[in-house]
Amino acid sequence: MKQAKPNQASVFALGGLGEIGKNTYAVQYQDEIILIDAGIKFPEDELLGIDYVIPDYTYLVRNEEKIKGLFITHGHEDHIGGIPYLMRDVNIPIYGGKLALGLIKNKLEEHGLLRKVKMHEIHEDQPIKFANTTVEFFRTTHSIPDAYGIVVKTPAGSIVHTGDFKFDFTPVGEPANLTKMAKIGEEGVLCLLSDSTNSEIPEFTMSERKVGESIDSIFRKVEGRVIFATFASNIHRLQQVVESAVQYGRKIAVFGRSMESALTIGQDLGYIRAPKGTFIEPSQLNKLPDNQVTILCTGSQGEPMAALSRIAFGTHRQIQIIPGDTVVFSSSPIPGNTLSVSKTINQLYRVGANVIHGSLSNIHTSGHGGQEEQKLMLRLIKPQYFLPIHGEYRMLKMHTKLAQDCGVPEKNCFIMDNGEVLSMNKEEAIISGKVPSGSVYVDGSGIGDIGNIVLRDRRILSEEGLVVVVVSLNMKEFKVSAGPDIISRGFVYMREAGDLIQEAQQMLAKHLDEVMERKTTQWSEIKNEISDILGPFLYERTKRKPMILPIIMEV
Amino acid sequence: MKQAKPNQASVFALGGLGEIGKNTYAVQYQDEIILIDAGIKFPEDELLGIDYVIPDYTYLVRNEEKIKGLFITHGHEDHIGGIPYLMRDVNIPIYGGKLALGLIKNKLEEHGLLRKVKMHEIHEDQPIKFANTTVEFFRTTHSIPDAYGIVVKTPAGSIVHTGDFKFDFTPVGEPANLTKMAKIGEEGVLCLLSDSTNSEIPEFTMSERKVGESIDSIFRKVEGRVIFATFASNIHRLQQVVESAVQYGRKIAVFGRSMESALTIGQDLGYIRAPKGTFIEPSQLNKLPDNQVTILCTGSQGEPMAALSRIAFGTHRQIQIIPGDTVVFSSSPIPGNTLSVSKTINQLYRVGANVIHGSLSNIHTSGHGGQEEQKLMLRLIKPQYFLPIHGEYRMLKMHTKLAQDCGVPEKNCFIMDNGEVLSMNKEEAIISGKVPSGSVYVDGSGIGDIGNIVLRDRRILSEEGLVVVVVSLNMKEFKVSAGPDIISRGFVYMREAGDLIQEAQQMLAKHLDEVMERKTTQWSEIKNEISDILGPFLYERTKRKPMILPIIMEV
Repeated sequence: MKQAKPNQASVFALGGLGEIGKNTYAVQYQDEIILIDAGIKFPEDELLGIDYVIPDYTYLVRNEEKIKGLFITHGHEDHIGGIPYLMRDVNIPIYGGKLALGLIKNKLEEHGLLRKVKMHEIHEDQPIKFANTTVEFFRTTHSIPDAYGIVVKTPAGSIVHTGDFKFDFTPVGEPANLTKMAKIGEEGVLCLLSDSTNSEIPEFTMSERKVGESIDSIFRKVEGRVIFATFASNIHRLQQVVESAVQYGRKIAVFGRSMESALTIGQDLGYIRAPKGTFIEPSQLNKLPDNQVTILCTGSQGEPMAALSRIAFGTHRQIQIIPGDTVVFSSSPIPGNTLSVSKTINQLYRVGANVIHGSLSNIHTSGHGGQEEQKLMLRLIKPQYFLPIHGEYRMLKMHTKLAQDCGVPEKNCFIMDNGEVLSMNKEEAIISGKVPSGSVYVDGSGIGDIGNIVLRDRRILSEEGLVVVVVSLNMKEFKVSAGPDIISRGFVYMREAGDLIQEAQQMLAKHLDEVMERKTTQWSEIKNEISDILGPFLYERTKRKPMILPIIMEV
Repeated sequence: MKQAKPNQASVFALGGLGEIGKNTYAVQYQDEIILIDAGIKFPEDELLGIDYVIPDYTYLVRNEEKIKGLFITHGHEDHIGGIPYLMRDVNIPIYGGKLALGLIKNKLEEHGLLRKVKMHEIHEDQPIKFANTTVEFFRTTHSIPDAYGIVVKTPAGSIVHTGDFKFDFTPVGEPANLTKMAKIGEEGVLCLLSDSTNSEIPEFTMSERKVGESIDSIFRKVEGRVIFATFASNIHRLQQVVESAVQYGRKIAVFGRSMESALTIGQDLGYIRAPKGTFIEPSQLNKLPDNQVTILCTGSQGEPMAALSRIAFGTHRQIQIIPGDTVVFSSSPIPGNTLSVSKTINQLYRVGANVIHGSLSNIHTSGHGGQEEQKLMLRLIKPQYFLPIHGEYRMLKMHTKLAQDCGVPEKNCFIMDNGEVLSMNKEEAIISGKVPSGSVYVDGSGIGDIGNIVLRDRRILSEEGLVVVVVSLNMKEFKVSAGPDIISRGFVYMREAGDLIQEAQQMLAKHLDEVMERKTTQWSEIKNEISDILGPFLYERTKRKPMILPIIMEV
């Protein structure tokens, strides 16, 4: 990194700007780096077969000794999912709220890293002090308990990171600490990094309590079984389901691994309270009348392998839909999941369930604040500089407009790219350099071993399929000694394309004899000849361009 | 097909029930088949590499001589796109509105089928009579001009097919013929087949005129260039853009093949009227000040190859974004396109454009009526039986609820599958049988040659890649004479996975020597041995399961 001036504080993101997920931010003052969140991103369709995307940690590895700690705003995957990958490379302590630490512990344990990492629970009234910087916390409201905003106080001024937030004045858990935010603002804030997810939404986000009313009304009216699908991490939502189930005399059976572990951790840490006997084993379901049953499950995004999809499509080992079931989607589909959610809903209707979903039914609310809440944050914190984070570029752009409406001068608003470093003090703020950044793909156990070439190949294979040509050549006598054989996958159905393949084979055999007569010894040349003659032939006959893989064996 | 009773009329769909697209419906009375629409479907992501989906035409081919004609409700692809594929197999006349016929002509010409097919323009006041059945038309409003509903009068009663419709009382073109619908209803309707697309939307769909007002307001205010992206087939929308451009002294340059041909056909048939000199060539763009420029283009769905995406990402041959451009998305993203639209919007902001999009800006309206319009249709037509069409299952289901609210008894509402035949007269309506139905995939020039095996292979290849193992065996001496060689595509980046591949090779070589010692002669057995030993090895090392393709050559 180019050097900021010694009296400047710097902020940058390794992930989380101009996109959703992969949130990883840093505040640096001289030799002290305060790391905020270490998230993961679930890939879009075009990253064929990739499991996760993490940011490039090069800068952090190189500067490991400067990192004072990783401070976690809340326990969602896009803020903690990268931790196991980061902690392989660096040895730093983690600071976070009670629930986030609980979730991180599970994660580190799965990766065999638990012993290596020191973890500290944070509290609003306990600042963490380092040589030059101090880190403080303020409680916010979000769709998971124990969400915090973070203040990094440096000699150049305070940097505030909101984490993900909304202003829910009637939350299920603790309310946001407006008083502390106001106080932080009054003391003076150099720069605000604020959540931009819902900056295109003009409404004030609905309170979680309203969702509770809708849940109550469903449990009050429904006579058959209630099958309730939601995000496992939305512990407040789970608590509201538990309350309504208890209220109307229903037991709860839980399906889906992440839902089971959320309920365990939620109960262990005291976020979910239920009378003894509320939860039952799946095997007990058949012993209860339908109107005493609640099924709480994963799959509200239509994920094909999650409990709800399997229940809908009749492939679940333990339960299936009974006509008269009411299925509640307490969620809104993430853009990439619209089709799969829709398929699941269709299937549920087909097998006789009633389905409650969609914004009209008030059965879900966002965890992110809309424009008015973002403006409220701006008015409370009153920053000198503004840096919108967490959201696509269009949302960052809109958020800077809101900041300007709230009195931040346009020249003090920065829409940055991941890796860009903003260095500042009260006199100036400038982009002072760039640290290495980018996407690292995790596929199976491989981290970063899948690049664009592999992805390009996967794309071609997925759309056009593959044709392998194998030929054995006797390079002493310049003769074809076996083959050419043609094998295809994903191209045409071989049994029905016998003529096509046979014709291609004959043409290639003839051509290879000619090539051998020329006494060519360059294999790459022979391979090119195969591709160059087979490709156009297949395209002419099928209008498809499969990947052609010529394989030559010398005997 | 099982026989309906002789005094019954039958209806069935080959496509268009429980899905969007592929609309192909038939009304049959004894030996007369009235075919309604022949649509195509654009495949979802899971159909890797497939270009289009058409229905199985087997029943139509077998009963070609009974088909009196193909009657077209309107010129959208999901209602006319299947025509070239159908017309290869059967020789029947086409009846349709002026615009639909114009679009079909282009289509048939491209496929070299124009001479073969007889086409007849339909008019509201000209019924088409056959021996037993008569076909009549009533004008509806939709997002393309010349949209019609169809009445098939049979001795068993009248069958009404709405086509796609909304009730736009202030449309840009002709209003819907409410009077005729009321008259048809008064004369008595046996069965209504009605468009279900927006049955989950409680609102009355906004009039196209309102969109015109928004367009006007944009053209009035914007000072830079206006780049306007919309569906090429929405001729009324194009006309409104032309009007506003002319009004505020702007010329129009057109980008995108389908947009160019829509404007040509629209002007030829008199739907688009523009003063001479309104349209300019792209080369003239630079000669005009920005505030005299309109760019009308394709790509409002974020399609990567369409004009707008290429303009946004700087890969268009002729133009690029200038800061200050205003880009209008006069469309709403189809569920599968949400991400690509979002990417295009982000990129446009990045390069300095202002973007107008989304429902808040009233810049687009649906072509399909909401619940109130569907109920209005039900109240006008007053059918004895009701069959919701065109929409996913959940929408069909909701539409039957609306029908019941409007007085159709529940037992008279039929949610059917493609292929199922509903036979009816005033006394009864029953599912009397099933005709062959299903999806036929079109990939390149192949129709129906891609099946589930090929798609399964494409899916594995796309997610995990491929490993080819080639080995030459001397089966006389039972020795490996060359190889094994390992080649991979889409699996790992080969240059960096040298160790892994080498190790696998050594392991396989050793194993194959052992296999040869056993003097195995069954190639399938040898291939299985290769897969069985390599698969687990690669999975253990990479947690990936590539397709393994063992190839044995005998020399």
